[in-house]
Formats: sequence, structure tokens, C-alpha cells
Amino acid sequence: MSSSFGKIFRVSTFGESHGGAVGVILDGCPPKLKVDINLIQNELDRRRPGQSDITTPRNEEDKIEILSGIKEGFTLGTPIAMLVRNKDQRPGDYDNLEQVFRPSHADGTYHLKYGIQASSGGGRASARETIGRVAAGAVAKQLLKTFCNTEILSWVKRIHDIESDINKEKISLKQIDSNIVRCPDEKVSTEMIERIKELKRQGDSCGGVIECLVRNVPSGLGMPVFDKLEADLAKALMSLPATKGFEIGSGFSGTYLKGSEHNDAFIKSDDISKLRTTSNNSGGIQGGISNGENIEMKIAFKPTATIGKEQKTVNAEGKEVLMKAKGRHDPCVLPRAVPMVDAMVALVLADHLLLNHAQCDLINK
Amino acid sequence: MSSSFGKIFRVSTFGESHGGAVGVILDGCPPKLKVDINLIQNELDRRRPGQSDITTPRNEEDKIEILSGIKEGFTLGTPIAMLVRNKDQRPGDYDNLEQVFRPSHADGTYHLKYGIQASSGGGRASARETIGRVAAGAVAKQLLKTFCNTEILSWVKRIHDIESDINKEKISLKQIDSNIVRCPDEKVSTEMIERIKELKRQGDSCGGVIECLVRNVPSGLGMPVFDKLEADLAKALMSLPATKGFEIGSGFSGTYLKGSEHNDAFIKSDDISKLRTTSNNSGGIQGGISNGENIEMKIAFKPTATIGKEQKTVNAEGKEVLMKAKGRHDPCVLPRAVPMVDAMVALVLADHLLLNHAQCDLINK
Amino acid sequence: MSSSFGKIFRVSTFGESHGGAVGVILDGCPPKLKVDINLIQNELDRRRPGQSDITTPRNEEDKIEILSGIKEGFTLGTPIAMLVRNKDQRPGDYDNLEQVFRPSHADGTYHLKYGIQASSGGGRASARETIGRVAAGAVAKQLLKTFCNTEILSWVKRIHDIESDINKEKISLKQIDSNIVRCPDEKVSTEMIERIKELKRQGDSCGGVIECLVRNVPSGLGMPVFDKLEADLAKALMSLPATKGFEIGSGFSGTYLKGSEHNDAFIKSDDISKLRTTSNNSGGIQGGISNGENIEMKIAFKPTATIGKEQKTVNAEGKEVLMKAKGRHDPCVLPRAVPMVDAMVALVLADHLLLNHAQCDLINK
Amino acid sequence: MSSSFGKIFRVSTFGESHGGAVGVILDGCPPKLKVDINLIQNELDRRRPGQSDITTPRNEEDKIEILSGIKEGFTLGTPIAMLVRNKDQRPGDYDNLEQVFRPSHADGTYHLKYGIQASSGGGRASARETIGRVAAGAVAKQLLKTFCNTEILSWVKRIHDIESDINKEKISLKQIDSNIVRCPDEKVSTEMIERIKELKRQGDSCGGVIECLVRNVPSGLGMPVFDKLEADLAKALMSLPATKGFEIGSGFSGTYLKGSEHNDAFIKSDDISKLRTTSNNSGGIQGGISNGENIEMKIAFKPTATIGKEQKTVNAEGKEVLMKAKGRHDPCVLPRAVPMVDAMVALVLADHLLLNHAQCDLINK
Repeated sequence: MSSSFGKIFRVSTFGESHGGAVGVILDGCPPKLKVDINLIQNELDRRRPGQSDITTPRNEEDKIEILSGIKEGFTLGTPIAMLVRNKDQRPGDYDNLEQVFRPSHADGTYHLKYGIQASSGGGRASARETIGRVAAGAVAKQLLKTFCNTEILSWVKRIHDIESDINKEKISLKQIDSNIVRCPDEKVSTEMIERIKELKRQGDSCGGVIECLVRNVPSGLGMPVFDKLEADLAKALMSLPATKGFEIGSGFSGTYLKGSEHNDAFIKSDDISKLRTTSNNSGGIQGGISNGENIEMKIAFKPTATIGKEQKTVNAEGKEVLMKAKGRHDPCVLPRAVPMVDAMVALVLADHLLLNHAQCDLINK
Repeated sequence: MSSSFGKIFRVSTFGESHGGAVGVILDGCPPKLKVDINLIQNELDRRRPGQSDITTPRNEEDKIEILSGIKEGFTLGTPIAMLVRNKDQRPGDYDNLEQVFRPSHADGTYHLKYGIQASSGGGRASARETIGRVAAGAVAKQLLKTFCNTEILSWVKRIHDIESDINKEKISLKQIDSNIVRCPDEKVSTEMIERIKELKRQGDSCGGVIECLVRNVPSGLGMPVFDKLEADLAKALMSLPATKGFEIGSGFSGTYLKGSEHNDAFIKSDDISKLRTTSNNSGGIQGGISNGENIEMKIAFKPTATIGKEQKTVNAEGKEVLMKAKGRHDPCVLPRAVPMVDAMVALVLADHLLLNHAQCDLINK
Repeated sequence: MSSSFGKIFRVSTFGESHGGAVGVILDGCPPKLKVDINLIQNELDRRRPGQSDITTPRNEEDKIEILSGIKEGFTLGTPIAMLVRNKDQRPGDYDNLEQVFRPSHADGTYHLKYGIQASSGGGRASARETIGRVAAGAVAKQLLKTFCNTEILSWVKRIHDIESDINKEKISLKQIDSNIVRCPDEKVSTEMIERIKELKRQGDSCGGVIECLVRNVPSGLGMPVFDKLEADLAKALMSLPATKGFEIGSGFSGTYLKGSEHNDAFIKSDDISKLRTTSNNSGGIQGGISNGENIEMKIAFKPTATIGKEQKTVNAEGKEVLMKAKGRHDPCVLPRAVPMVDAMVALVLADHLLLNHAQCDLINK
Repeated sequence: MSSSFGKIFRVSTFGESHGGAVGVILDGCPPKLKVDINLIQNELDRRRPGQSDITTPRNEEDKIEILSGIKEGFTLGTPIAMLVRNKDQRPGDYDNLEQVFRPSHADGTYHLKYGIQASSGGGRASARETIGRVAAGAVAKQLLKTFCNTEILSWVKRIHDIESDINKEKISLKQIDSNIVRCPDEKVSTEMIERIKELKRQGDSCGGVIECLVRNVPSGLGMPVFDKLEADLAKALMSLPATKGFEIGSGFSGTYLKGSEHNDAFIKSDDISKLRTTSNNSGGIQGGISNGENIEMKIAFKPTATIGKEQKTVNAEGKEVLMKAKGRHDPCVLPRAVPMVDAMVALVLADHLLLNHAQCDLINK
């Protein structure tokens, strides 16, 4: 149900933030795919807490354990189960929150829906849940790299009102990871880091925008009508905690253009399968199907709901209470959300790669 | 596959724009629901072509035929099949397009994916495909009205750069439908209509933003992790033709706020199930689950790709050609997209209503 | 929901027995597949009522109408919608049944579940619902024939206690269709026809066993654990009206053998992909995956529940009533069930062919 | 994909027989359900190897570890992840099998499909995979017991040719578990145990039939057309290792009856929701929907493929080899298959309970 994603390359995650473990089952992965476990661990390291001064101080090593589906570095075609134990749990930190609803957090809605909640912390609403996504996404990335040389790059575009101006042509993973905020603009990244630290000192938080670029996308991925590639990407990214908006290609700003300005002109080509366009307002997708251009997206992340400042709120009886979060939390989720965006995009593309292969490559090739 | 949507309240659409018919099967609808066929026809009338000077002149009555699942105005609990015949087909209009890829349209990607295309017109990429969605959505609306008194209202917020300022408290369907552009701001709507007519005269097109408001949403709809309510809404709306962006609640602009500014404070309440917040930056959803506040969304629609102006493009051999669309098309899709937005939102909410009932109302009640 | 079948080669059927029409949407079919409409009509003719003295006299031409997804004899890769109008409806025939539950029929359970029923006749429980299955199955058969030269043959093995002894090596469609009971044993078929006629005269009915043989099954179809090929075949066939039992390979009788007797020995082969076995107790499937041998199944069909004899039963108030069915019904469903079995088997195999291609043929080829 | 089962009460299993662990995620379980972990462990003990002289000597404690979704004995409504470590692994036992295909086992088909296999033992085809099913089924059993007082009882009906005659009215779990073969007929069970021991001594194996009875089934579970209750039960049970046949109610033997003999007459009743029938050839299901009578099924299990006797077979190069299994295996799977049957039936019924509640209890109650 709600903890599964994908049609035939399909992940199912589990785990509460302060329970025994979090993890994922990845089913439907092709057999005999070479998988480098270090690359999985590396993505988890990019998303792990405690990685820098501007993330939550919760200190988790987040060491991945592979329980099934991989043998001597190759996939078996059977479910790949991956597990990370929760270690640095401090349920006590949230004791004062147990029956208090943090404003704009999931505490209240979980209580209204289920009438019961995980002991403490965010339960399934915690960012720890994304460990399973990131681990499975790291396998998806390797699948895409192996078959299509596809490269997924996400970075912090804006923090609060500090915006970077990135040359997408040249951007690389190395640049993105060169600083702790994951904005590949050296100068601007320093300002961003300062802003986050300042807000943290104030017991406050901020949000921003992550941009994602996918290179070497095969044309033909995606489908008409409901399972359009941009629709599945939108769902995937809007399922990440704290997201409030999604844009593909020209997004909202494209709506200020006329059709004659917005249309992406095709460039003549001897090889129709390698058709390119002069501009990319479409963001690499037309009619729900990739056209071979880069996929380009932007995702809005709201400021972290859990803040140190005192706030008025209510408890599970509806009575007014004052609260001040003691739990460890990120003053800004974006630096750690970068690998989550990568992962969700990889999961969508891997699923659509297999789906397209299933339906359209039986006859053509 | 790609033409089905929903988990247990599930629609499957079919039909090409110039084929025999378009339609939908709606499966999983509760039995004994009173359904007014006139309300279904009314929604189709709101989306039908030829309804005004600013829509495509293709003249289709779009008369709904119910083939199954309803008896004397009540649902049977079995699949509801609904059909609309294509009548005013002029495949000849698109003869010059058959092997020509309209820029930023689905022609090229369909060809790359399938290697074969519907005779003419947009095939499944045509807005005619949405007839099935709108018909099924009209049933979903009645289900939501019957069980929760839920009301879904969408309207044109902006056309090109002409923006309206709407008082959401007072807005009504009557106001929205009081003018042909479906912007409930009388003065601004006149400007919008003028702009669309002007661009039409120029053989050009424009886009804009539709806003959607849902009142009386029961709390508890939606689920953690992947099937968050906002994620399913994002997918539903980004699956509509011509969409480029989606926002829930504060959207992209909310990312300029600090956490202390963005958080929606709860108001104390004796009845916890009727909890409200002082602001609604969350847009009615927290942690993927509705909190009982209004759901508020914005959707970006790009300018129509098919324009009358001459454009350079390529044909299926990759050779450069000049084209000038003769087919009938909308200079701006937004007025007709309003009922499509309503429909997709209704389908998502109806499905989540049943899903929540399945999992969470067995014990509670 | 319950009216859809298949994961990526997916059918959704609709229609009540005495409503406007019955039909099907087939989604996920590969594009550019050559489809002969006559072969679809031919399968419908094999299942249509009124085809002989031993079937229901309801006279329906069951002429197929293709609404979408096929252009000039080739699939577009988009949903194929197919429709058959109900013509020879006589709702009056069932007037005396409207609130009476036929013993062992779906009348009672539909009433208990939905609290409302189709006007008359069996609604979705009628054999007319299978029209959509047979039409879609005829497309699946052509897909399987085109890609793998796969041939599906079903026939009547036993009627009541009259059993045939068939040489499976030589059996052909022509033989099967050479008589109206569809038993390819000329002598025994005459006895079967006599038995059915005799029971019909008595206002009674009978059941029996259909056998199914699939030749040229590619190895590798099916999956471990839940979606084993035999499990999906069992579900497909047990979803046909009136089925009470399913066997693959040695079935129940194989349980009387010892392992050393039951095991199918492999025959050495230079080409491992063409591995064969000396016996076929496995029925062509091992561990849920096809091994390249013929798939062999048997399906038990109970005697028709609707009979002309007077029976004691109850009405919707639970009161005892006497009933004697006036509606037109089959004294034995098996002759018309043969094409239904073919269709369901074809749908399962086509779906698994695409699924296997998706997961396992990306790397191998 | 293939390792998931259920629509909204959904399990996903993972794990190879000789990997790190096997387990399951159960998603969609209602919140606030009281779950007794001992009852889960108890079901695992019923299926664990090494429990008696007539099962495999592999000695696994199979101690369940709950990783998420349960807090202080109550479900949270979030995914319940359960894990069992593999301890008594002896991959060496199967060394001589690594590239040898055991006749009638999954070795050959896994190799043909995936081109790669788990290190040794059966991988996903091993009975160890069913641990996840049994653990999740034990939760489903508690759900059914809590809401409907439903009781699922399975037992060994026949071993090889030794058949028991059971009085279904009186049968109890205590009787079933009173002997190691799980046949509640004391005298016959002794013969069965002797037969199994004798065949084990000969290095041979046997199969048989398990019968399943479900009491207190609410009417209205199941759906028309494809997701008929008996169809989902057939799939569930035919997905268990070694199954070759499935019967509901009268099964194959019912096909020897006339309609007038086979029909189950309704008994008049003041309360229509408690309608009963004089006989139960339907096996508790009519038209795909439960009628409130007991559900009755029979499942055929073939003799274990892995035997100690020397057999001729082939290796992965297609060359002929002689083999004699050294690995520990069951001479007869039925005693341990009893809790597997219980589990699969529970999973199907729990899913259909929620599905029926979702669609049909919104209006009625």
C-alpha cells in the first residue's frame, strides 16, 4: 500500500525513527546486474544525520546490511532486502512531545487518522524513513548507469532567499558534494551555510529549492495519460517529506510565455532516434514521454516544522500547550534531501525503463 | 497500465481523438450511491470544445452514454462504463501533420516510443482523452458530496500575465461559471478573454495558472510515505495535458519564510476531530494526511503547443519542414481545464476516502 | 479493481447481461502488432449463445466493435476498447426471479454484498461478462503466436460421467471444433451431446472437465513466490463462472505417486535453453516458472445452477418460495467455456511474456 | 512484484534459504489491533524444520524479530516488518548440486530464467521463503478473529494413499496438532507417520492432500469477475511450493452430479443476513462472494522433489550427471504445509474483509 512505490521495479520501505530498524525490499530488479555496495553506502552517507554542522546532530552511522537478493556483487533477480539499524535513539528527547502536536508536523494528522502513534519522534514521518528509498535508489542509479549511461544530479538551488546561478552544462557530482550545503556555487554556498547557522542559533529553520538534472535519458520512457513520466516524477518528489511544489522544465515561469516563445524547436537530424531541440522548456518530456533531452526539475522544500523556538500548540486533548522542541532536528532539510531527490528520480526512471522495455521493445528490436 | 488511475476507486480510460469513441470504466464505486446523470453531462459540457469564442471551434455535443453499472439512478457496485462518440472529426485537417512533429507536442515522442501513431490529431495526447476522466470525476464528486459534503472548486487564477485576486472565502461555482474564461473576478476576466482573443488572432497561444480549493475535507485522508495525499494530487494534476508545475499550500513562495513564520498554529478545541489552524500554509495536508482544513493547490499550464503561426520543425524522417497548424485547437487550454482539475482532484479524494475507510474505520467505529 | 486482470498486459471488463453493452479495455499491448479482427470475432462466435442445440437459445450475434487502439490492423500501443451490444434481451424472462435467489447462483450473494442488483438475469455473474475476456484473449493469442508461435488448445475432456481419451500429441483446433460439444473424440462426443440433450429435456443440467494444452511455451515465464505461473493460471481459470477445481500437470492423481516416480527426468541437451524432460508430471512449470515443456491443466465446471426443474428456495425477505427458471440458460456450460479457458490462459501468458521480457531480457540480450 | 500479495492488506516477502535472513513486510494492517507475538511465534513453530522425525533435520529456531509497526502489542497502522535469521545453514550440503538441476525442482527453471542462482539450496524456491507468509498470516488470523470470530483450520487429509475420514463439525486445532503429521484421525495418523518414515528410509518421498475449513466467514467477501474469492484463494494456495491442484466445495467430484443434485438449497430465515443452505457443495462461495457458510477447500501437494535416491539428471551445461541429494529435506511436505495453508487463507480473507469494508460498508452502515 502506501509504503510501496513503482510498478515492476518496486520498493517497499518500513521502519519507525525510533524502532529497531528501517529498511527496504526492492523487487523486480533485473538479474545479473553488477551492484557496488560501496555506492549504496555512499548515498546513505550523503543523507545521514550528523554529517556536518548544518544538519541534525543525531549521530547514526547508517551502515547498510544486505539480507538477500545479491550474491557476490550481482543481483539474483529476487527481492533485495536492505536494513539499517537505529542506534542513536533518544526517545526521551521527545517525551514532552508524545501527546503534543508540533505545528505543521505529522503528529496531529497521524493521531487523527490512526488514533495511535509511534513511541516518540516522527515515526514513519521522520526523515529516517527515506533510508530505504536512498538505498534502493542507489541500485536504480547503477541500473540506469549500466544500461543507458544515465546520470542524475541534484543540488541546492536556493536556501531561504539566497539563490545560486548554476551553469548546468558543466555541473558535476564532485562540485555538488564540494561543500556541506550541496550548492555547486562556491561563493553562494558560503552565504547559504551562514544563513542556516544563523537561523539555527535563533531556534528557527528555513527551506528552499532543489534542482535536478538528468543526462542521457533514453527517449520513449513514460506513457500517455495517467502514468506520464512527469506525473510519476511529481508524485515521487512530492512524496518526500517537506515538499510543497514541483516544476518540470519551464514550470510556473513558462506560463508567462506565448506558445511561439515556449515551443521547443526540433533540430533536423539524420537519425530520428537522436532528435534534439534548440530549447528545453519541455524539460525533456513531451506528452508524458521522454524526448531524449535532459530532464530538468525544481522542487520546493518548506522550512523544517520542528524548531527550537517556543510555540503555542495543542495536545491530544485539544488543550493549549507551550512547546519548545528538544529533539535533534535539521535547521534546513535541503542538504540531506539532495540524495533523496536523486533516489526518487532514479526509482521512477528505472521503473519506466523496464516498463518501456516490456511493452515497446518486444517488436522493435 | 498507463490509462488506469486509483487503487480501489479506479478509472480506466480509452479512445483516440479521431477514433470511434472515447470513454471510461469506473470500477470500485460503492453500491446504492444516487447518481444524477445530468451532473455528469454538466461537467462534460463545461469541458466540451466549441463552448465559447475562446475555445477550439471543434463542435462536439459530447453526449454521455452509460453502458453499465447504474440502474434507475443508483450504482450497482459494478463497473460503470461511460462512452462519448466522436462526431465532428476532420482527420483531413491534420493530414499535413501526419508525419510532421509539432514542436512541444506529443507527436514526436509517441513516434519515438511506439513507432506508430493514431491516424491524425493528438490520439491519446488529445484533450479528448480527458472526457473519461471528467465523467468519472463527476461520479466521484457526487460520492464526496453525499458522504462528506465535500466541495471542489477550481478557477482560472492567471492567464498569461493577467492575474486575479480572489477572495477564497466567498468563491462559488456560480461565480466561476459566470464567464467563459472561468475566472471569478469579473473585471479581470474581461481582460483575460481579450488577451486570449488577441493571441488567437495572432495565431499564437498562452498559458496560466489554475487554482483549486477543496472545502469540507474529512481529516485522515492520505497515507504516510509514498501515497501521501499531496503526492497523489500532484500525480493526478501533472497527468493532465500541458501541466508544468504543481503547488500545495504555500508552494514555492513558502520557501522564502522561516519555520516560525510558516508553521500553522493549531487552535485549541474541545473536539479534537475538528482541530483547525490559524493559517493554512500546509494547504490542508500535513505529513501526507488531510488535517481538516481546506486543501489549496495551484497548477501551471503551459501555452498550447499547436499554434497557427508558421513554425520550422522536422518530419518523421528527421528532415526540416515548415508547418502551420490547420487543425482546430484552443488558443488557451485553461478555461476547459477547470473541470479537468476538478475531476482529477475528486478521483484522488474518493479513492483515499475508501482507502481510509478500509484501513482505519474498521476498528474506530 | 475486481474487473481488471493482469499486471502490464491488463484487461478491464464491464457490462451487465441485460444492460446496454458488454466490453473490455485492453491496456499495455505492444504497438505495431498485426491483429486480425476476424480472429477476434471467431473466438466470440465460439462462445456465443445460440450456436447449437446444446447451448442457451438466447440469440446474440455478438458482433465486435473496436473503438480504439487499432489502426489499419495494427495496434497503436494505446488501450484497445472493444464493445458488444446486448440485443436479444428479455428481462421479462427473469421477472419472477428478481427477488428470488436461485440456489447455488450469485443472486443471493450479490444481494447480501451490494444490497442492490442488476435489473434481471445474472448481471455481472452472467456468462455474458466473459465476452470481454474472450475478445481480449483473442488479441493475446495473436501476440503469443506472433512472438513465440505459442498455441493454446482447450477441449471438453468429460461431460457428467462420460470421459474421453485424447491423444494430446495429435490434437488440433479443427478436431476440437468438429462437433458442438468440443470434445475431439468423435464417438464419445456423440454420447456427450445425447446426455446434455437428455438432461435438458428433464429440466436438469450437468458439468464436467475441460482440459487445456499449451504448446511452444517459452521457458522462463512466471516468477517465484506469489506470482508463480501456475498460481496465476489457477486464479485466471477459477475466476471463470462455475469452476470448482484446478489441476496443473499430475494434479490430484500425482499425489498417489512417490517422489522417485513423480519426478520428471531431464534429457541431456547441447542447448540448455531447449531442455526437455522424459515425463511431464510438472505440467510444464517448475518452481512457478515454465520449463519449455507443454503446459497441461484440467478445470472442473459444476452443473449449471439455473435449471428448469422446480426448486424450493427463498426470496429477498428470506421467505420460502417455489421457483422454476424461465430464462434461457445452458444445460451445460462446457462447450461454450472452451474459448473462455483459451482466453484466460492467453491473458496470463501474454502478461508473463511481457513481465519476463521487462525484467530478464534487458541484460541477457 | 512477484514477492508481494494482496491489494490493501499486502505482504512482501524476501530472503534466500541460505542468505542472511528471511522476512516480510505487512502493509495496510488496521491500526490499534491487539497482536499477540506469541501467536505469531507459535505459527512459525508449527512450520519450522526439525520439529519431528518426519520433517527435515535442518534445525532452525526461527525466532521472530519485529522491526516496526507494532508498539506495546498494538499495531500502528504502519508497515509491520518481521525478520528471521538463517542459522543452521550448511551451504556445503548442496555443493554437489550447484550446477546440477534436481529433477522437478526449481533449479533448472531459475537458471533458465535468471542465468544466475542463489549460492546453494533452493534460494527463493525453498520452503524457508514461507516464513514471511506464515508470520504475516498469523497477524491476519488475529485480525479475522478480532473482527469476525473467523477460525481457519487446515489438516492433512491424505498422505500417499492413506486417507482419513474427518468429522468436520467437531474438528479443532488441538486435535490437528495432537500428532506430528497433523491428521486429526488418531489411528490413520499413525499409519501416515509410518508410511513417511518408510519412504524416508528408502530415500524416497510422498505427497498428499490438505483440507481447509473456515468457520464464521462473514457473507459478502469477494468480488465478481476476476477477483472472485475462490480465484484469489486458488492463487494463494497454488503459490505454495509443491501444490498441483485446488478444489473449492464439491471440486472435481461435484462434476459427476446433476444440477438438481448439486444445487445448495437455501433455508428460509427471518434474518436474510444469516441465510444458510442445506448442503454446501458451493464451499461457502457463490458467484465469487462468500455466502456465510463454511469455506471448504482441498489442496494437492506433490511428493517432495529432492530425494535421497540416486537419479539421472543434467547439469547447467546440459550434460548428463548422476545425483543423490545430501541436503536436508522433508520426505513429505504436508505436516509443515498445514500452517502455510492457514496463513495464505488468512491473508486472502483479511484483504477481502478490508476491500469489502471499503466499497460496501460506507453506505450500508
